[in-house]
Amino acid sequence: MKIGLITIGAELLNGARTDTNAAWIGQHVIPSGGSVEWHMTVSDKNEDIINALDKVPKSIEAVLCTGGLGPTHDDITPTVLYEYFGAQPEFDEDYWTLLTERFAARGRTIPDSNRNQAIKPHIGEVIPNPVGSARGLHFTNDHFDCFAMPGVPSEMKAMMLDTILPWIASKSKVKHHITIMRTTGIMESALYEKIDAIIKDYPKVNVAFLPRFTGVDLRISSTDEDAINTWIDLVSPIIKKYHFGGEGVALEDAVGELLINGGKTIATAESCTGGLIGDRFTNVSGSSAYYKGGIVAYRNEVKREILGVKKDTLETYGAVSEETALEMAIGVRKRLSSDIGLSTTGIAGPSGGTVEKPVGLIYVGLSHENGEKVYKFTFTPSRLTNKLMTSQAALNITRLYLLYGS
Amino acid sequence: MKIGLITIGAELLNGARTDTNAAWIGQHVIPSGGSVEWHMTVSDKNEDIINALDKVPKSIEAVLCTGGLGPTHDDITPTVLYEYFGAQPEFDEDYWTLLTERFAARGRTIPDSNRNQAIKPHIGEVIPNPVGSARGLHFTNDHFDCFAMPGVPSEMKAMMLDTILPWIASKSKVKHHITIMRTTGIMESALYEKIDAIIKDYPKVNVAFLPRFTGVDLRISSTDEDAINTWIDLVSPIIKKYHFGGEGVALEDAVGELLINGGKTIATAESCTGGLIGDRFTNVSGSSAYYKGGIVAYRNEVKREILGVKKDTLETYGAVSEETALEMAIGVRKRLSSDIGLSTTGIAGPSGGTVEKPVGLIYVGLSHENGEKVYKFTFTPSRLTNKLMTSQAALNITRLYLLYGS
Repeated sequence: MKIGLITIGAELLNGARTDTNAAWIGQHVIPSGGSVEWHMTVSDKNEDIINALDKVPKSIEAVLCTGGLGPTHDDITPTVLYEYFGAQPEFDEDYWTLLTERFAARGRTIPDSNRNQAIKPHIGEVIPNPVGSARGLHFTNDHFDCFAMPGVPSEMKAMMLDTILPWIASKSKVKHHITIMRTTGIMESALYEKIDAIIKDYPKVNVAFLPRFTGVDLRISSTDEDAINTWIDLVSPIIKKYHFGGEGVALEDAVGELLINGGKTIATAESCTGGLIGDRFTNVSGSSAYYKGGIVAYRNEVKREILGVKKDTLETYGAVSEETALEMAIGVRKRLSSDIGLSTTGIAGPSGGTVEKPVGLIYVGLSHENGEKVYKFTFTPSRLTNKLMTSQAALNITRLYLLYGS
Repeated sequence: MKIGLITIGAELLNGARTDTNAAWIGQHVIPSGGSVEWHMTVSDKNEDIINALDKVPKSIEAVLCTGGLGPTHDDITPTVLYEYFGAQPEFDEDYWTLLTERFAARGRTIPDSNRNQAIKPHIGEVIPNPVGSARGLHFTNDHFDCFAMPGVPSEMKAMMLDTILPWIASKSKVKHHITIMRTTGIMESALYEKIDAIIKDYPKVNVAFLPRFTGVDLRISSTDEDAINTWIDLVSPIIKKYHFGGEGVALEDAVGELLINGGKTIATAESCTGGLIGDRFTNVSGSSAYYKGGIVAYRNEVKREILGVKKDTLETYGAVSEETALEMAIGVRKRLSSDIGLSTTGIAGPSGGTVEKPVGLIYVGLSHENGEKVYKFTFTPSRLTNKLMTSQAALNITRLYLLYGS
């Protein structure tokens, strides 16, 4: 099914907001048999939205709109669509009661400006919003089906997953199969060299490399499901060391599963990552089964007093050193009585670097029943990138230990 | 000057890549007097690009295109534009010599596939590329000026900054002024009600509400700088409690500045946020001046043994309670000898909720020289949203304490 996209909002044109919805929608319609073939971004002005609807190419069967369903003066999408599709607004008392109750449950009075979210059209359908108050709209004319969703990504995604993707799947004949293989700990070019020959042997299987600072995702697509499966069977053993999961799997999910399977607990001692590894562990529901907690030892006094890093070590080798990373990992494992202790210390930057210890110099320490080890990295000049890459390296070190014992 | 944007590439429509160029261009043309009023995303197919060029509205004076200037088979933008603007290709021997030398300087032989980058049109202009080999193009017809740039963000930005933005500035009469006011702790609808009247009184000042889970940004724009300043003077006192900074300022930046100005240090005791608040504090360069570190007390044993939360408190009231939040904040302040102790405990979800303690129930504790206080929230069913909203609420509680002493 050929799909058109109209993303609505002056903030998209003037760049106050990056349109991440378009890419999410573009990706997610494919497994349901959809394909975004046309995309306009328009301002939240009556004539611009109508103009876009008028310009939808003949070949497009469904138009997805995002944005402009909220309660403020620039949220005009429903008004425009009611007029365009000839719908009359009706006040939905039941929904207004529900909204009022929802606000009351959170100890708030619902503002009157939210009343427009309880309007529904006399034709077409409203689309439930599992995570917000603005409902979506579904209208049909003799050219296309039109779906309107909020611009808030979580609300848009919930409506797509619950209502619109199943609708697209029910109308589509050809299914495209897509598999994501997520890797970490290997650069794009090195990964490409490992599987280059297999890619060339299977022209029916389309392979895209999507590199990030934290690793490279492989996006494998084809209309031939068997070809994809054969391809994956061939590639999997070659990239096993780097391949930690499929679509939607974060490295912390994979590490969590290995910890549960191994019956192990872990604790973190974070300096340069400042809590990011703990944050990532606890992003996983059920992580309390293996993540005991941690010490964010940002100041040296915390490293000394709570983790038991020796004063001598800090003075002789410095806070950013193999020795300190080691004592932090050992210290947190002991202090929190966990099976594994994981530590980070480094120069996150952008300032604070020296010739001997440049910005981006990072140590990750691992302590466990069989011993301890420190890993050294030199990352980037960017503070946030260094924190992210360090957390990823630390999680991957834990993964490799749990898989291979070292 | 009204500007149209055509972003070219199948990877943008199928979502393999998020279009970050559009937002960058949208933002950066404004100070030069430009305004993106129309934007189409099209596939790298001949007919789709021509169709977009044909559809450029009458009001648009300049069209900026990105993508499809590289050396591979799907880089067809120049071919299409030559045909559309009636230009003949000529081989640019000088540029080819330059490219050959550049490759040689890096110890490489230039591939023949790069020859198309030395083609130039017999009319129009080429745009220099300070950071890559593909040059841009500039054509004119009786409707608009058309600029083509590579899709690689660094190359696009270099061409914009060096050539295209100065051109836009030279053609524009009116300059647009923009200010961002970032708020937190108030919902979009409530914020709107507070300043609704002022918005209506100043039709020359354009106000957009940009809501996130963590707060609402106001984007105020006008061609009349005095009107913006008057507007801000009127609105500022009304939203002072919620307004924490301008463009690019995160709440942790604002809190960090208040801590530095007040000469105070802070430590965190995180349960449900798992390290996210520490992560946010340490995203700020120089945060070691005030952020001492923290305890991620995910398991109760860590709350007891390291933070000194009483066994009795945990058994009587539970880990998610006002009492536990209080003892955590007091405990971490004492343990890390900081001026302020900040704690979080809650049911992040999605599972683990009960009737008395539903998912989204969160307590934030604050302990300081004048006493301590616990704040209760009921957020959402989503784990990551709850963590994010809790971290934001905790930072905002700290901000309000530092500003108003309570």
